[in-house]
Amino acid sequence: MKEYMLQLGQKARAASIEMSRAESSVKNQALLAIAHAIDCASDTLKLENQKDLQAGRTKGLDGAMLDRLELNDQRISGMSEGLRQIAALQDPIGEITDMGYRPSGIQIGKMRVPLGVIGIIYESRPNVTADAAGLCLKSGNATILRGGSEAIHSNKAVAKCIQQGLVEVGLPADAVQVVETTDRAVVGELITSAETVDVIIPRGGKSLIERISKEATVPVIKHLDGICHVYIDDTADLDKASDIAFNSKTHRYGVCNAMETLLVHASIASQCLPELAMRFVEKGVELRGCDLTSKIIDCKIASDEDWDTEYLAAILSIKIVKNLDQAIEHINKHGSHHTDTIVTENYTLSRRFLREVDSSSVMVNASTRFADGFEYGLGAEIGISTDKLHARGPVGLEGLTSLKYIVLGDGQIRE
Amino acid sequence: MKEYMLQLGQKARAASIEMSRAESSVKNQALLAIAHAIDCASDTLKLENQKDLQAGRTKGLDGAMLDRLELNDQRISGMSEGLRQIAALQDPIGEITDMGYRPSGIQIGKMRVPLGVIGIIYESRPNVTADAAGLCLKSGNATILRGGSEAIHSNKAVAKCIQQGLVEVGLPADAVQVVETTDRAVVGELITSAETVDVIIPRGGKSLIERISKEATVPVIKHLDGICHVYIDDTADLDKASDIAFNSKTHRYGVCNAMETLLVHASIASQCLPELAMRFVEKGVELRGCDLTSKIIDCKIASDEDWDTEYLAAILSIKIVKNLDQAIEHINKHGSHHTDTIVTENYTLSRRFLREVDSSSVMVNASTRFADGFEYGLGAEIGISTDKLHARGPVGLEGLTSLKYIVLGDGQIRE
Repeated sequence: MKEYMLQLGQKARAASIEMSRAESSVKNQALLAIAHAIDCASDTLKLENQKDLQAGRTKGLDGAMLDRLELNDQRISGMSEGLRQIAALQDPIGEITDMGYRPSGIQIGKMRVPLGVIGIIYESRPNVTADAAGLCLKSGNATILRGGSEAIHSNKAVAKCIQQGLVEVGLPADAVQVVETTDRAVVGELITSAETVDVIIPRGGKSLIERISKEATVPVIKHLDGICHVYIDDTADLDKASDIAFNSKTHRYGVCNAMETLLVHASIASQCLPELAMRFVEKGVELRGCDLTSKIIDCKIASDEDWDTEYLAAILSIKIVKNLDQAIEHINKHGSHHTDTIVTENYTLSRRFLREVDSSSVMVNASTRFADGFEYGLGAEIGISTDKLHARGPVGLEGLTSLKYIVLGDGQIRE
Repeated sequence: MKEYMLQLGQKARAASIEMSRAESSVKNQALLAIAHAIDCASDTLKLENQKDLQAGRTKGLDGAMLDRLELNDQRISGMSEGLRQIAALQDPIGEITDMGYRPSGIQIGKMRVPLGVIGIIYESRPNVTADAAGLCLKSGNATILRGGSEAIHSNKAVAKCIQQGLVEVGLPADAVQVVETTDRAVVGELITSAETVDVIIPRGGKSLIERISKEATVPVIKHLDGICHVYIDDTADLDKASDIAFNSKTHRYGVCNAMETLLVHASIASQCLPELAMRFVEKGVELRGCDLTSKIIDCKIASDEDWDTEYLAAILSIKIVKNLDQAIEHINKHGSHHTDTIVTENYTLSRRFLREVDSSSVMVNASTRFADGFEYGLGAEIGISTDKLHARGPVGLEGLTSLKYIVLGDGQIRE
């Protein structure tokens, strides 16, 4: 297995050099060829997917898992459509910025280049195979994809379409490789292959990502969880506040940018909480409040643990705070540095919130649900990062690139 | 010790919050106050330094080590002058860029913020204490400094000046802390304290940095070595080529951006190597060439190992290559992704070299010795990174910061 992964890595490294030199038009042709291959292979994909679904049912996978695993017509055309959208995005590679002259006479600036080899580790969803491969391809990287063992037939079938498209336009098939063994030790091998892999992007549940972060020696772009807050200040427009809080929680429950805790300024709590609580309860959201909250609305009492919990469900914790300072302190202490928003009409408070909240996205008067690569105009998203180094927040094509310095001289030497 | 480091980390974390909010003028006042305190403490600093030198001599440290360890009048005023220069630089914190409206009506951009807590691990040179602390302070970070045990008295004395300056202007003394124990386990503790430390910057020999990279769970900004190349193409202006090669090797030997291997196009080798070899030999540089080289000039035969060696000394390996492709292949395989330059008058070849050489600095017709924070106009340098993620190349103030997304809305919710 070690030998197999080493070979995979070396093939990816070699392909990454070709990919870094590939012209935009060729990369785009490859994306369109892959999209076409996926459309044409629709029946085969569903057939291979059936094997995985069958095995999943036999293994007793739960309904949600089986749903994520399924490739139906809609999801298959979703994959090809996604690839066509990536083809339409601007190529980030080769962009040169900040060229300027120095007193020595040299001219210096930065050039955007691919990262090299990207390892993607993910669970169940076979459509990630096409999405992730497409983004890595467009940004001139080679990719090693390690999907969940439960999706192995589907992933191999998608990979076949991808390699067919690559070869059709003269790009190396090894630019996108799917790990074909389901041996679990593969993950440990992949995340410690610093010689052949430049960065790991894990997509999946918190336990997978925790394990990878702990054991990886290759850099990891990740977020562990999304404990997002909405803070309603006493200077808020209460209509905006109600809509933003309601949307942030109920637009979708199982997503990382959904609000998990609502913070309310003490002096407007009795004014805004009853109406808001009614909206939530009507929608079926369970409310857990601090002591003060429970005196204003009907709710369970939140435990200490609630403030540190990502529910990913129709549950909301509510805490009344004295002022902005206490709100910021709570967010920086209990949040996950993902996305937090203040509702306020006050200029100075909005500026303080923006500067002092230590999260990858900080918002004023907008729903936390906007924290998303498409909404931010990145055109696509390979994930969200709550790390501070390299990419932070929604990660699009640019997050899959690096900047190197370039220096143009006319024979300058250092005195 | 674990307990001590945890306390240090928690104090740093608390101080980092205050530092992230500190106004530029206050940070600059602190830098000037520290510079003044260092100037005033000159005698004490030399006295404390004598203790380290004494102990070093007793321990039998070599001359080079003792030289790096020494604090004399020149080095002390160098520290204070460096801090005044940092005070004069523009504050990177709070800069907002790329604000633009999205179809949803939200306005989105990025704000530059500090990284948080930076751990610096370094050897012998006590002046790094002031330099590193100054850069981290200016960029709004808190710092934990772990210098070599052989410099402990000097480092503590410098730290006292720093904390005096911080307190004078009302900033927390804990913003810059020097680890006061010489227990070696401290390093292992520091580089795995992801809760309290955001990034580690090691400064020192290759073995220190290798150990840290291997064991750290906190992200590390680093470079291992500098195997830099000059490639003289057959389209080169040979006068420029000779000067650039000579300067890249002999301007200083012991630095990471010095050339270690010279690559020469086969068709001009016999034309340019004899004169160049003479210059090198006159300067006392030992030459080790490939077989072809040895037929043109008098030199030792280079072993396979030579191409992968950072001499940091008056030794140069020389290899004759067939063409640009072979030069690029050699650089990407044997180099350390630090700094490489081509000498050519050909437009197309220069563009290919810039794009295809995978190094943190890629140059045309300029000495490798320019790869330096000051020469690049960063104003200062905390190190050079050969990593691809986050900062790459010379790292100045900007490399000590992160970007977060900020979103300004008027009550927008997601449909």
